[in-house]
Amino acid sequence: MLTDLENAMDSLITVYHKYSLVKGNAHALYKDDLKNLLQIEGPCYLKIKDADTWFKELDINSDNAINFQEFLILVIKMGVIAHHDIHKE
Amino acid sequence: MLTDLENAMDSLITVYHKYSLVKGNAHALYKDDLKNLLQIEGPCYLKIKDADTWFKELDINSDNAINFQEFLILVIKMGVIAHHDIHKE
Repeated sequence: MLTDLENAMDSLITVYHKYSLVKGNAHALYKDDLKNLLQIEGPCYLKIKDADTWFKELDINSDNAINFQEFLILVIKMGVIAHHDIHKE
Repeated sequence: MLTDLENAMDSLITVYHKYSLVKGNAHALYKDDLKNLLQIEGPCYLKIKDADTWFKELDINSDNAINFQEFLILVIKMGVIAHHDIHKE
């Protein structure tokens, strides 16, 4: 049985693969895949920055794709915002 | 309704608070709290490094506590290992 933390990580990996596998490369989220992910999974984060800006910010190695590690940076940024919002409520 | 990604982030925040709130400071995981978290949530990661080593590595600002951002670094490190393992299976 998975622990709560393992379940949360498993969900993150599942979300990443849901969008990265669209074009068959499990380790690359292309610009339109990321836009799709943001529109479906976190539309509120598109109010802060548009999809292109998120993409440029996350594509640290400038290979025009977001790998899993780069995706986790998005998760951190979203996590910090979500955690902050929870304490505002 | 929360999206899959928001649910995953919500779970991460819940796990963090489950251990950080033990001593009443929602934003501080102390050394024994982290040890507790690792033992319960991810015992396999204690085979790689002991709890003290994890703590030193994560306490970037050296304030003897792991804040939420520092906890997310643990999540990234665990996520990278878990993601790697999934593709090995």
